[in-house]
Amino acid sequence: MKGTDEFSLIKRHFTRPNQRKDVIFGVGDDGAVLRVPEGSQLVVSTDTLVSGTHFLADIDPADLAYKAVAVNLSDLAAMGAEPAWMTLALTLPQVNEPWLEAFSASLFEICQYYGLALIGGDTTRGPLSLTLTIHGHVPAGKALYRSGARVGDWLFVTGKLGDSGAGLQCLLGQLTLPSELHRALQQAHLRPRPRVLAGRMLRGIATSAMDLSDGLASDLQHILTASQVGAVIELNDLPLSEHLLSAMPREQAQAMALTGGEDYELLFTVPEAQKGALATALAEAGADYCCIGQITNGEGIQYRQDGQPVSLSLSGYNHFKDVS
Amino acid sequence: MKGTDEFSLIKRHFTRPNQRKDVIFGVGDDGAVLRVPEGSQLVVSTDTLVSGTHFLADIDPADLAYKAVAVNLSDLAAMGAEPAWMTLALTLPQVNEPWLEAFSASLFEICQYYGLALIGGDTTRGPLSLTLTIHGHVPAGKALYRSGARVGDWLFVTGKLGDSGAGLQCLLGQLTLPSELHRALQQAHLRPRPRVLAGRMLRGIATSAMDLSDGLASDLQHILTASQVGAVIELNDLPLSEHLLSAMPREQAQAMALTGGEDYELLFTVPEAQKGALATALAEAGADYCCIGQITNGEGIQYRQDGQPVSLSLSGYNHFKDVS
Repeated sequence: MKGTDEFSLIKRHFTRPNQRKDVIFGVGDDGAVLRVPEGSQLVVSTDTLVSGTHFLADIDPADLAYKAVAVNLSDLAAMGAEPAWMTLALTLPQVNEPWLEAFSASLFEICQYYGLALIGGDTTRGPLSLTLTIHGHVPAGKALYRSGARVGDWLFVTGKLGDSGAGLQCLLGQLTLPSELHRALQQAHLRPRPRVLAGRMLRGIATSAMDLSDGLASDLQHILTASQVGAVIELNDLPLSEHLLSAMPREQAQAMALTGGEDYELLFTVPEAQKGALATALAEAGADYCCIGQITNGEGIQYRQDGQPVSLSLSGYNHFKDVS
Repeated sequence: MKGTDEFSLIKRHFTRPNQRKDVIFGVGDDGAVLRVPEGSQLVVSTDTLVSGTHFLADIDPADLAYKAVAVNLSDLAAMGAEPAWMTLALTLPQVNEPWLEAFSASLFEICQYYGLALIGGDTTRGPLSLTLTIHGHVPAGKALYRSGARVGDWLFVTGKLGDSGAGLQCLLGQLTLPSELHRALQQAHLRPRPRVLAGRMLRGIATSAMDLSDGLASDLQHILTASQVGAVIELNDLPLSEHLLSAMPREQAQAMALTGGEDYELLFTVPEAQKGALATALAEAGADYCCIGQITNGEGIQYRQDGQPVSLSLSGYNHFKDVS
């Protein structure tokens, strides 16, 4: 692998023909030059994935690239934005050509699917990690925030919750299951589907929205804090997959749905008057969703089981929580 | 430090009142929402700094924050863009409050000076590194690229070259100098001044531009390749500081200017007809600059000393160069 240097490496693996007309200049200069459509605002989000913290060191590079893009797309989805551009900062302990080939092939596959252009980045040597900064567009004034939930709004989530958390336990060997079940849950963890279209359809309907990364119990607090409201959640209404219910007792599955994390589904609030519009919009987006509770004028989250208050002690994943 | 978690940490150290009107929403949601001025294009650049690769592990956090922003600003300067917004992805081995306080104070100081708003980011646990993605504006069609150099254009650099490379040698203990000299060169390495105003003034004057990060000898090749031209450089015309010439013999200082790297000065080409406009523009920007050579119809770089061709064997810093 003589002659391999940073520049030929970037050129070989991360340069593809530009397919978006709003990319005036992409990879290959000191910066990319881009055009934001008139009447649109720009939405920008950044996520870092560190080996050993966010993924296992021996992860398949194709899964890693997919997930890095997917979790960033999920942030755009939560803002109601349409994906446009991405930068990739990739830190590698060494140059491993087959690894890079698998990584970049997978990266471009998901980018192409969502119409996302790779417009720049940086490759450096060091412990394996990657930081993506993703850019999307939203019609001016139409972005979805965490702060708009109002008392009486219904609380919804897309998809099912908890599969990803159970999938991680499978990967870590903490949960042993028949191979088909193992595979399905693991897949939910490795290949989450960002709710890009659903997010866009929620513009003008949802009063608040965010994506579920740390787990419902932890993430919902952000909406409650930003909106200065409380919420009640009916545990029996948490959407659980057949797979998850085959893997563990219902009570454990509910806890996984609340705290497992990395679901990358959308959590959002909708006023009573918009429930019809919501049904139409998410049917068009092909997204299943369900109501799990309601916004209250209280503080924090009240859990209920069959309408009766229950007390739970739960918390989501938090990188720095145990640091002292 | 009980109760320290990722969220309170972000809130405490990286949330400041928004001071730019084009930031509709900054830190605190799934993404930032931003407005690009009409008639402007967006310029985006990303740089990663990894502990042990790009800076010494015991670096003063104030110096680290300053430099991370400065090197990213330098990329914007090279495109002729005006700084606007920045995201920060910070990976830390542990929560160290005094470190974070010094880091963020310095970060906001340089951001404020250049009118740059911190609009988002991510904090994660892992080996120390940081990735900044910086956003600027440029009037549509006015960005400076590496590809516009034409045969006969004069080759210029701002400032002096080589001080930063010598400063790094001081820091590494490879160069022993009187303390005042040591401090001055070290400062050039730790606190490079990005040529933001000069870059903007070069719009419409320079035919190509880039910033010097790896060293002139290595960086110039990018302009030559992108523009499909060659260049001749007169070694006697390389701008060397009094400090550098006090620290080492002239020949060694010239080599440092060519390969030391991390100067973060601008390298650019200007046609004969624009030399007057250049003098006016850079005087207004308060930037010293000098002509170091000319663009030719050859290939690669020809070095000359007193007009006579000389043969040099040089190369810039390259992260993956020695990997096999």
